[in-house]
Amino acid sequence: MPEMNQRIVLASRPRGEASVDNFRLETVPVPALQDGQVLVRQHFLSLDPYMRMRMNDAKNYAAPQPLNEVMIGGTVGVVAESRHPGYAAGDSVVGMGGWQQWAVFDAAQPGALRKVDATRIPLSAYLGAVGMPGVTAWVGLVHFIEPKEGETIVVDAASGAVGSVVGQLAKARGCRAVGIAGGADKCAYVVEELGFDACIDYKQHREPAALAAALDAAAPKGVDGLFENVGGAIFDVVLSRMNAFGRVALCGLISGYDGQSLAIHNARLLLTQRLRLQGFIVSEHMHLWPPALKELGGLVAGGQLKFRETVAPDLAAAPEAFLGLLKGRNFGKQLVKLA
Amino acid sequence: MPEMNQRIVLASRPRGEASVDNFRLETVPVPALQDGQVLVRQHFLSLDPYMRMRMNDAKNYAAPQPLNEVMIGGTVGVVAESRHPGYAAGDSVVGMGGWQQWAVFDAAQPGALRKVDATRIPLSAYLGAVGMPGVTAWVGLVHFIEPKEGETIVVDAASGAVGSVVGQLAKARGCRAVGIAGGADKCAYVVEELGFDACIDYKQHREPAALAAALDAAAPKGVDGLFENVGGAIFDVVLSRMNAFGRVALCGLISGYDGQSLAIHNARLLLTQRLRLQGFIVSEHMHLWPPALKELGGLVAGGQLKFRETVAPDLAAAPEAFLGLLKGRNFGKQLVKLA
Repeated sequence: MPEMNQRIVLASRPRGEASVDNFRLETVPVPALQDGQVLVRQHFLSLDPYMRMRMNDAKNYAAPQPLNEVMIGGTVGVVAESRHPGYAAGDSVVGMGGWQQWAVFDAAQPGALRKVDATRIPLSAYLGAVGMPGVTAWVGLVHFIEPKEGETIVVDAASGAVGSVVGQLAKARGCRAVGIAGGADKCAYVVEELGFDACIDYKQHREPAALAAALDAAAPKGVDGLFENVGGAIFDVVLSRMNAFGRVALCGLISGYDGQSLAIHNARLLLTQRLRLQGFIVSEHMHLWPPALKELGGLVAGGQLKFRETVAPDLAAAPEAFLGLLKGRNFGKQLVKLA
Repeated sequence: MPEMNQRIVLASRPRGEASVDNFRLETVPVPALQDGQVLVRQHFLSLDPYMRMRMNDAKNYAAPQPLNEVMIGGTVGVVAESRHPGYAAGDSVVGMGGWQQWAVFDAAQPGALRKVDATRIPLSAYLGAVGMPGVTAWVGLVHFIEPKEGETIVVDAASGAVGSVVGQLAKARGCRAVGIAGGADKCAYVVEELGFDACIDYKQHREPAALAAALDAAAPKGVDGLFENVGGAIFDVVLSRMNAFGRVALCGLISGYDGQSLAIHNARLLLTQRLRLQGFIVSEHMHLWPPALKELGGLVAGGQLKFRETVAPDLAAAPEAFLGLLKGRNFGKQLVKLA
């Protein structure tokens, strides 16, 4: 068994943009296991935009990340030692193990740890398409947008862990899937590999009027469903192209996580187009995880649901990788290799 | 039978604020009845904020009001002559008879005309609490906000035809009802006569911070449901006080009908509080009218649902009364006496 554990804690809260100085890498002893606990050698850490919101000390849907404690984060790994009868050394497991190499779980706590099958599905996918991001896509699209065949669905951050699944699930339901992403390479991937009908490179359409014109070309029948990850100007432009009775699943506002304005200027459309908008956080819809994971797992095992990963090489690289994620520098699901 | 009919047509479209010059009073012959038609002597015309939106030639949820045609509007009256077997002279009826003294209805068209009982409920109430405004309140509150006992419901334009019903229905469901209205007299009426728990005079709290402080006092547990008629700064302030899983029924944006900004600056709250927002127009939910009218009619007949009317004396006074409505100069339901 290991004696020492590398981990990253929140050293300070960002003022505006987050920076590497907000994090601190520490080496601490691995604690001895108590009854009911399980020690996991973590293989991958998931980096996700929600972590940026937790770094603030603000009214939010979740408690702020405490200072000087290990950063929150989803992880996959393999059980190294177990003092809980439900787990044995060698089991592949998913949990919220945080930014560290070794994690101790109270396995008796419901939902703390989940055994997964790493034979049909690669372990890292349980942090992406068959994990929280995939379920987020499923809940927002299937449960809140309720897409109907022939409708047009738009998703921004389309090459990311969530957006890529949204578009593929929409295509599987007979919809027109339109992505918005930053860069020609991401857009090419979204259309050519993921099978979206179109993708708009917002970096080529910085002015709202230009973005609107590109959207008119990509979504000639208007927009019936919007899966919103970004907020700000992009959200406003898509709102202006929503059809009557359109639905918006509001999943993230990554453009405003450093405090930028997120004003919705096209609020009038919410009324005149009789839109429905629902903000949500996937962990509050646990009853939807089983049907979501069933569909997602089947699609990934069968090779029908495609995804891409960007993997930072080790824990020390996690802060830079996380800041890059907030800037859209990653390509697909951002992971950190821990073992 | 009459030979001449006074009516008001839309003479021009407003540029910014509407004015009396946008209307023209005409005297035209009453047409001879065709088979299936009914001639109604109109007693009351309803003036409603939605008419302002119809005056624009813009993308909207309904076709624009055509120029040089009689202004659209709900009316109650008494049948003067009928060439339809379902109606007889003396019947009290409700329909969209428009801004005119006499109206010819194609009674065979479904929904064109509806007989009402004027013995238990005053005729004018079918344009208010037991008509479109009352049903609008019911649909937004009961169907979209889905209030639960003990929750706090906020409605702006609270002394108006819609808002007054929203608060009373919320009280009947065991909620805390908080109104927002313009003026001490309206606020006193909302609390003392309509039975709301509190009412905020927005004219006394022009600054957002002051309005927010007043709302904190009136809704100390935060806001669970918002019935939004106004938009703009008031909407933004109430959004900032919404509780997790709050619901917004977006019914009107009267503060922006002349083209003013309706930007939502607190868009972040839609996500962080996981809010649900639904824009709606009551005429698209016809299946809800029967249960709504059943409850509303029973409450009005029993004296439990209170309302107030402001009645302009004749058709010539309608344009000024309508412009006053848009400024909040009316008190309760704005009507025009036609007979």
